[in-house]
Amino acid sequence: MDTDVVVIGAGLAGLAAARQLTRAGRSVCVLEARDRVGGRTHNAEVGDGRFVELGGQFTGPGQDAIQRVAAEVGVGTFATHNTGAHLLDLDGRLRRRRDFTPSAGALASLGFLRAQRELNRMARQVPSEAPWLAPRAQEWDAVTLAGWMDRRLRSARARALLTTAVRVVWAAEPDEMSLLHVLAYISAGESLQRLAGTRNGAQQDRFTGGSQLIAQRLAEQLPRSPVLATPVRRIVQDDSGVVVHADGRTVRAGQAIVAVPPMLAARIDFTPAMPAGREQLLARMPQGTTLKYLAVYDEPFWRHDGLSGQLASDRFPVSATFDNSPPDGRPGVLLGFVVGRHAKQMLNLAAADRESAVKDCLSGWFGPRAGAPRQLLEASWTEDEWTRGCYCSNLVPGAWTSFGPWIREPHGRVHWAGSETGVRWYGSMDAAVTSGERAAAEVLAAAPAGVSAS
Amino acid sequence: MDTDVVVIGAGLAGLAAARQLTRAGRSVCVLEARDRVGGRTHNAEVGDGRFVELGGQFTGPGQDAIQRVAAEVGVGTFATHNTGAHLLDLDGRLRRRRDFTPSAGALASLGFLRAQRELNRMARQVPSEAPWLAPRAQEWDAVTLAGWMDRRLRSARARALLTTAVRVVWAAEPDEMSLLHVLAYISAGESLQRLAGTRNGAQQDRFTGGSQLIAQRLAEQLPRSPVLATPVRRIVQDDSGVVVHADGRTVRAGQAIVAVPPMLAARIDFTPAMPAGREQLLARMPQGTTLKYLAVYDEPFWRHDGLSGQLASDRFPVSATFDNSPPDGRPGVLLGFVVGRHAKQMLNLAAADRESAVKDCLSGWFGPRAGAPRQLLEASWTEDEWTRGCYCSNLVPGAWTSFGPWIREPHGRVHWAGSETGVRWYGSMDAAVTSGERAAAEVLAAAPAGVSAS
Repeated sequence: MDTDVVVIGAGLAGLAAARQLTRAGRSVCVLEARDRVGGRTHNAEVGDGRFVELGGQFTGPGQDAIQRVAAEVGVGTFATHNTGAHLLDLDGRLRRRRDFTPSAGALASLGFLRAQRELNRMARQVPSEAPWLAPRAQEWDAVTLAGWMDRRLRSARARALLTTAVRVVWAAEPDEMSLLHVLAYISAGESLQRLAGTRNGAQQDRFTGGSQLIAQRLAEQLPRSPVLATPVRRIVQDDSGVVVHADGRTVRAGQAIVAVPPMLAARIDFTPAMPAGREQLLARMPQGTTLKYLAVYDEPFWRHDGLSGQLASDRFPVSATFDNSPPDGRPGVLLGFVVGRHAKQMLNLAAADRESAVKDCLSGWFGPRAGAPRQLLEASWTEDEWTRGCYCSNLVPGAWTSFGPWIREPHGRVHWAGSETGVRWYGSMDAAVTSGERAAAEVLAAAPAGVSAS
Repeated sequence: MDTDVVVIGAGLAGLAAARQLTRAGRSVCVLEARDRVGGRTHNAEVGDGRFVELGGQFTGPGQDAIQRVAAEVGVGTFATHNTGAHLLDLDGRLRRRRDFTPSAGALASLGFLRAQRELNRMARQVPSEAPWLAPRAQEWDAVTLAGWMDRRLRSARARALLTTAVRVVWAAEPDEMSLLHVLAYISAGESLQRLAGTRNGAQQDRFTGGSQLIAQRLAEQLPRSPVLATPVRRIVQDDSGVVVHADGRTVRAGQAIVAVPPMLAARIDFTPAMPAGREQLLARMPQGTTLKYLAVYDEPFWRHDGLSGQLASDRFPVSATFDNSPPDGRPGVLLGFVVGRHAKQMLNLAAADRESAVKDCLSGWFGPRAGAPRQLLEASWTEDEWTRGCYCSNLVPGAWTSFGPWIREPHGRVHWAGSETGVRWYGSMDAAVTSGERAAAEVLAAAPAGVSAS
């Protein structure tokens, strides 16, 4: 044996697993396809040693695991900039709002609020650790969220409002996801308001120095650095252990943890083959469609105009923005999410056309200065070979009820981690951490110290 | 260059492509992961040199391509046994019927017939070569077939009738498929009656000697035999050609045709990477869930009882049977399809439990003799590493309208074939043949004889 445990993937899930195993006295080898750690978290320097995030970045109340780990490696949090007026650009009308909660006056808002209440109420009947056990699981897994919306939301405007919210929260369209999946996701994230919100919501806080710093610190603290630029292609196991074949390297271990997104896990060749149920599950977990833009300016000038930098829109291509400046506001950074349908359209555009489409949006909302950033960074996660879609996998109709129990079922000596195998805050950095710690616990239980394979 | 064109997959699609290329004077190397040719067609000997099929087997009017190729390699057809009474086992009641067309008397049958008429009518508005161009594509791609059925079929019994029919035709449940996909599939197969029927339908005829014989003959006629047991893992291309890396072998060619099911095509590592749109499409094309059983008896004794051997049922696990005996009725063979939801349940059972569940069904329907076959063959296509699901891929909501145009879009020097890329009779042997011939034509157009890369 080269090591007790081999971990595939040096994102937060894999690193959290490696850390727990190391603490329990196991030797661990982490293999990573990219030339960096952090997976779907990725820092970009925007001058003067300041960093902002190209990937996952937000956290909020209830996400105890990622905040605990961050604190342990000395990464603090600060509040997402949230003062000033938000912008709402819907149906071709640009409005200023104190918050995004639809005003109860308009009919469309009423419909939206009623739908939100009903989704939250249904979500409370869905156990996020086993959505297939919900009393009405079969019924809710037979339809898409869009199918449900068509029935429950009379007003086209209310449907459009909810579609925009869904697009931003899931990076997917209502017609792509099983209603049961949406409910399980809400259940795992407490409520739709919590998932979509800034104050008291999942966007409330950010990590000082950028979220990737957590992964970097976790990696630094491991006795053996993750092996980078080493994609795993094949995993062979028998009674004595696992052999992991990566480009240019083969690792023998007692057990393995696969901590990569479902679409990538499905591509590893397994001997013996993965069970049919797990294969079928993975084939029903497409990843969301996202491009993330960071527009960098000398200062966050929109603050002087009384704007928060936060916006929701149904316009192509940007569906939401945030003020994503470092804590001291230097430089000024606007974050733009291009998600769902708009991201799919964006994939067909050349780089220059993408850029000008984003700048057009920004200058329309925040004035001409916004259209001339000193830097415009793009993270096209759907085109990224080692991610293939963000924020996460969203299950299609029929998947949770037919194949859900496979989600965390080990394949012999191979255990599964990753944000999509987390029970709370499905698809988030928090879920990545809890999934890694759970997989590590499985490994320790399967091979107690005395009978370690190495 | 080792060869002008490398073809990945020696199923009907790959072999049809190789044949056309050979005829046009190109050198071709066919690589196949299994130790046999034929892909989803697979013959089993049932004594005395007689063969029946573990995989795709039926053909019918309008499937000109597979019948043309079969005739060219000297494989004839014969009529599926279709005399005697059919059995219908629904709601715990076993009935004899002259045919499966629901009698117009009962209310449930009326609902079923109305739904069938409406599906056929909608399907005529869906061009099977580009379902995303249907006038109501967005609307129909936003819902599952189940969502549509819930609205249009008042009677629970009518829904159950249609669910059983759908399960048998698609090997999937109504809640797993986009309504638009179902309509495109019907459009590609002319009508639901045509797809589901025996006489005048897609089950009307069988191939003498077994359908795999077509692939075997095609392979024999190639100047170079397909290279078996050689799974392809990686395809690298640049301006000068493609390099295909398979287990134990590397092949350099001018162009490549990938002729394997979508779930398997998604696993090949491509350099440069596949475009994001194609990746996202493949992630939304899960393959149906099927186990096929062949029960072999000394003779087709059910014929003496006036039974056709054909049955439709909502009972677990067998949803449909056919008399699958060779032309002269020696031996007698009953074919049982376990599909959709029942197949998913079956995957969780041990071999002995599966067998007894199937035998219980057969003896309940065809008498105690049927419960004691001299041989019971199982083909579990969903568990088969080199298929991973049958009959074919069924697209989930949102897939055709978001990513449909990628279905046949070449990736540089790599072209796509396979039953799911065929325009007529989607998912059938006929579609495999036309897809292979179309991919071959693309290759010839991309590199005319004078500028052949070799």
